[in-house]
Amino acid sequence: MYDLVIIGSGPAGLSAAIYGVRAGLKLVVIEKDYEGTGQVALSSCVDNYLGLPGMDGYSMGEKFREHAVGFGVEFLEAEVSQIEKSSSIYVINTSDGNKLETKTVLYATGATHRKLGAPGEEKYDTKGVSYCATCDGAFYRKKTAAVIGGGDTALDDALYLSGICEKVYLIHRRDSFRAAEITVRKIKEKENIELVLNSTVTEILGTDKVTSIKVNNKLTGEDSILDVSGVFVAAGSVPSTQAVPSDVNLDPAGYIIADESGITSAPGFFTAGDVRTKALRQVITAVSDGANAVTSITHYLENM
Amino acid sequence: MYDLVIIGSGPAGLSAAIYGVRAGLKLVVIEKDYEGTGQVALSSCVDNYLGLPGMDGYSMGEKFREHAVGFGVEFLEAEVSQIEKSSSIYVINTSDGNKLETKTVLYATGATHRKLGAPGEEKYDTKGVSYCATCDGAFYRKKTAAVIGGGDTALDDALYLSGICEKVYLIHRRDSFRAAEITVRKIKEKENIELVLNSTVTEILGTDKVTSIKVNNKLTGEDSILDVSGVFVAAGSVPSTQAVPSDVNLDPAGYIIADESGITSAPGFFTAGDVRTKALRQVITAVSDGANAVTSITHYLENM
Repeated sequence: MYDLVIIGSGPAGLSAAIYGVRAGLKLVVIEKDYEGTGQVALSSCVDNYLGLPGMDGYSMGEKFREHAVGFGVEFLEAEVSQIEKSSSIYVINTSDGNKLETKTVLYATGATHRKLGAPGEEKYDTKGVSYCATCDGAFYRKKTAAVIGGGDTALDDALYLSGICEKVYLIHRRDSFRAAEITVRKIKEKENIELVLNSTVTEILGTDKVTSIKVNNKLTGEDSILDVSGVFVAAGSVPSTQAVPSDVNLDPAGYIIADESGITSAPGFFTAGDVRTKALRQVITAVSDGANAVTSITHYLENM
Repeated sequence: MYDLVIIGSGPAGLSAAIYGVRAGLKLVVIEKDYEGTGQVALSSCVDNYLGLPGMDGYSMGEKFREHAVGFGVEFLEAEVSQIEKSSSIYVINTSDGNKLETKTVLYATGATHRKLGAPGEEKYDTKGVSYCATCDGAFYRKKTAAVIGGGDTALDDALYLSGICEKVYLIHRRDSFRAAEITVRKIKEKENIELVLNSTVTEILGTDKVTSIKVNNKLTGEDSILDVSGVFVAAGSVPSTQAVPSDVNLDPAGYIIADESGITSAPGFFTAGDVRTKALRQVITAVSDGANAVTSITHYLENM
């Protein structure tokens, strides 16, 4: 019987593991991939995690993992297929037929960015193609960038980048935006944001990094080339909630509803990191979530 | 005219500065002490900041500062005497007569732990005397520790330490606790927690580190010696809110009311770190706060 099973070995899960071990909890981290460290491993450079400037994401993940291993954190490589509750205990079923009993669960599986699906997108990932303006915007200071999308995130990204970049194209396949009216007005007021409406990006072009994009106007059928250094895909992200029990409330976008405490609608079931409802999905906020969730978990265990 | 003035150069303020500079904001960090890094600098060892294991607090603070300096963050050494609002602009007055105009303020001044005031407390600070069980409890695995205090924090600390230490004395000057009933019951159920009531700690004794404490029973007048390796002072903490304007709401303990967004009751006035209402005051949660607050601040500025 575990005090805590942590599902996910990204920054949130690893931070929680360290706080949990330090608090004397009997715990295990279930990781989908052997020695995985989550989405951070895919970043070319993380520059905003205080104390570790300019580190590539893979090395950062390694550092995080070494920290947890140094504390004697136990890992189990498995895919979680189902989580059942039996009286006050959770039973974690893995796809290889294992069953783990635990008093609490921390669900920290993260989220993945939705892809555009255009040729060149994969080739130039981290070489000009980004899925996070807050993460990577600063690398495009005084350059030209394109934001692709029409929702709140796309418009927020365009506004954010307009304060950093010389010019920002906002490319949207429709002729109007789903975003909040006030945000749309702000976008239109920015002199260095150019709207490219009724248009889709059909290819991302470059040499060793992105140099331009091919854009198709759906009304005229015409193709054009826009010179850009950065392409920010704002097509939304998908939380990894496959094994979340039905009594855990999700928001309309599918994220687990919880504030910074990590407490969900299901007693004993906690969440941390990108998979929860939050304003800013970053390494630093995930790591903080892990610490906060363990505080909630120790209180819960003390009162069980 | 600044976009953002950050008051406080601890982990919350430095993280916010990095996120702010990356977002293209014109900002300055006001620091009370030259090259100060806040309370973290006083920790002998911070072991739970993911990626930087086993680092002394002073070095950690230095690393944080170097990161900010590397991003070109501007610092101003000054004491803030008053913050005034003039239409939608804040005016920051410093005690040396300076006036800074800014569109937004991030108040990240931290908090200080209340001292016990007993002989030996200062001498053995970080050598057995601690003010934070979550921070330092893990250093007392299988050892004996004393918690001094009678409020919720003291009882939570005792419960937390009971899962790590061999034995925990909970020393309180009264014969009952101010804490929640359920917590008191849990304390009494723990076999390795011994209550020492109606008693005060009159001296902390040791060699190069703490070895025992002298306890005076106020009813009998008798002194006794308890052998302990760790002394956790849970006498509360005091948020540094001297210059907070009157329209910013504080909680009953004096902390600035805000959730993880850092948004306070006063438009344009944000907060981050130990000075805000929160469950867990740690380096990692402060750094995350700084990032989250800048997200709120950029949204605010975009809609000004």
